Amino acid sequence: MKFTIHRDHFVQSVQHVSKAISLRTTIPVLTGIKILATSEGVTLTGSDSDISIEAFIPKDEDDQQLVEIVEEGSIVLQARFFADIVKKLPEETIEVIVTDNLTTTLKSGSSEFNLNGLDPEEYPRLPDIEEENIFKLPTDLLKNIIRQTVFAVSTVETRPILTGVNWMIEDSTLTCTATDSHRLAMRHAKVETNSGELSFSNVVIPGKSLNELNKILDDTNQWIEIIVTDNQILFKGKNILFFSRLLDGNYPATKNMIPNHSKTSVTLDTKKLTQAIERALLLSRDGKNNVVNLKTMADGNIEITSVTPEVGKVTEDIDCINYSGEELRISFNGKNIIDALKVIDSTEVQIDFTGAMSPFVMKPLEHEYMLHLFSPVRTY
Amino acid sequence: MKFTIHRDHFVQSVQHVSKAISLRTTIPVLTGIKILATSEGVTLTGSDSDISIEAFIPKDEDDQQLVEIVEEGSIVLQARFFADIVKKLPEETIEVIVTDNLTTTLKSGSSEFNLNGLDPEEYPRLPDIEEENIFKLPTDLLKNIIRQTVFAVSTVETRPILTGVNWMIEDSTLTCTATDSHRLAMRHAKVETNSGELSFSNVVIPGKSLNELNKILDDTNQWIEIIVTDNQILFKGKNILFFSRLLDGNYPATKNMIPNHSKTSVTLDTKKLTQAIERALLLSRDGKNNVVNLKTMADGNIEITSVTPEVGKVTEDIDCINYSGEELRISFNGKNIIDALKVIDSTEVQIDFTGAMSPFVMKPLEHEYMLHLFSPVRTY
Repeated sequence: MKFTIHRDHFVQSVQHVSKAISLRTTIPVLTGIKILATSEGVTLTGSDSDISIEAFIPKDEDDQQLVEIVEEGSIVLQARFFADIVKKLPEETIEVIVTDNLTTTLKSGSSEFNLNGLDPEEYPRLPDIEEENIFKLPTDLLKNIIRQTVFAVSTVETRPILTGVNWMIEDSTLTCTATDSHRLAMRHAKVETNSGELSFSNVVIPGKSLNELNKILDDTNQWIEIIVTDNQILFKGKNILFFSRLLDGNYPATKNMIPNHSKTSVTLDTKKLTQAIERALLLSRDGKNNVVNLKTMADGNIEITSVTPEVGKVTEDIDCINYSGEELRISFNGKNIIDALKVIDSTEVQIDFTGAMSPFVMKPLEHEYMLHLFSPVRTY
Repeated sequence: MKFTIHRDHFVQSVQHVSKAISLRTTIPVLTGIKILATSEGVTLTGSDSDISIEAFIPKDEDDQQLVEIVEEGSIVLQARFFADIVKKLPEETIEVIVTDNLTTTLKSGSSEFNLNGLDPEEYPRLPDIEEENIFKLPTDLLKNIIRQTVFAVSTVETRPILTGVNWMIEDSTLTCTATDSHRLAMRHAKVETNSGELSFSNVVIPGKSLNELNKILDDTNQWIEIIVTDNQILFKGKNILFFSRLLDGNYPATKNMIPNHSKTSVTLDTKKLTQAIERALLLSRDGKNNVVNLKTMADGNIEITSVTPEVGKVTEDIDCINYSGEELRISFNGKNIIDALKVIDSTEVQIDFTGAMSPFVMKPLEHEYMLHLFSPVRTY
């Protein structure tokens, strides 16, 4: 194998596929990046067997030559060193040469690395996915959907299915749901399907996969194609393939958990609410549960308080933009509310309470496609 | 005590004095910030008994009222919460009120914190320093001197005296020296003294103190006054006092360690040398000692190499701007060289070797006030 490649493109692709690589894998060849040079260009692959990422650097792009192939071939190089090395090479192009004994030489200007390669024959094949049921959506929308749900997944392995985000499609509407059983985030979005009848309901994507995917996607409006099979999901962007294993098991039915009535309803300024709860958390984070108390006031406003006996007490008054319904005193995990407020993308939010001991719903006022559900905390 | 204070000035002063506070202190009152309100303004103090910082917020500055004192007094408030609270308060001014039982109320807009205070009578007094021998230098020069020496102090406590930087003054020249016994950094600077006869030689300032001092100094050309006593040093800036304990013991005589002749001398481009060693370190950092090898070449250039058998080898050629003297092969800790190159502030550097087993000197070519010394590493 022998080729010359444009450094910046090589660096970016190496960084993308490195996201899939774990140094704690039990399969030695998976600590490496597979490099395949063909007459079309150079393909890089990284995988931890849960996530696999393939990045392609074409020979030419926008009338610029990115790769010059002298001899086709393939090699696997240890990822830990490779990403740093490529980034620090001095010149605009890098020459890559593999000799018979897998030793690989990288040359750039007055710098030369000789690296011990691994046998590319040992590298596992990527999943073979039939492209039957495809749907697509713009990259920036996909990034938002991920950001607005994945934070709510469970981080403990007691119920593994909750470490993933549930995706379902019905009538060309994608619904994404994440919950750790104390809070739930739900997001709807219209998608384009290649057949109007595409529908599925129990697709659960590991939160870790979605976080890694979000890191390598650019904030553009280019389409991403998505293909779901029994145990895999594939995201296809420009010159990049992202495969993730799906989680086994049945995702809990969350639809019935969401109350459809309200006893107390308040509309609040998102920024004021965020800042008041953040200040309340300054004292309660040091206790155990980030517990914050909310109380409706006679003047139609609300009061947020938090107490840590050794330190002190904080009291915050917030004006309600709208207020209706019964008086209420309720306590909740303030950090969960802040997490949701950060992704809600609306200057005003509406909170619908159904009593001090029942879950409550927070929604943006400016759009309909998102909902957050929270369990209260018992404080007595 | 009761006063109203301009929030941004309060925040900055709280952040400054917090730098001195350690949460692991055995003296409970030192986990707090002391606040003293007098008719002149508000004084904040933080201390871990090694370092003490005092920040003063005057009543007025530049025709702007910063503090309105209603009732003089003092209190100590837990630093851990206080800095965050003050930073997050919503309005431009903060009202601070202490009631009889040490409870302190902070009010700002619709936000109110009630904090349990500590008794200010228990707070230790700051060292009483006689201002006899004063010297001064501009703040930005002081910051540079610290940056260019403190990185070389020892981080292990086997020889405590080496965890500090040695300061000495002779003929109005300050010489600062730091060494961890493998490398040494030395910096000279002219200072102004209030008496031409001011001289001292065994003042050793803890590296930690200098690092904290550097964080709170602005990059201005305002004068800093410095006063040295037997066991304390005091830095006096505008509205800020920084006290540090000095280290006990005799600093080693470093002057004789520096060779004054050279067998091989090379002049190199700082950036090219830095990048070549950084690339060489990519492979050797994973071994133990960051060992990098340097070899003079027949063509008058030098070659930098590094080998890690499991991973591979890197070879870097660097053009010499000047080369004179004997052939040489030498190995050294590349990370130590990088640390020095980062502070050397010169586009070209000269390295004077005195043989493969002897210490060598690296100097900036553009100025005379700095010198770095390194021990070679035996590789056989």
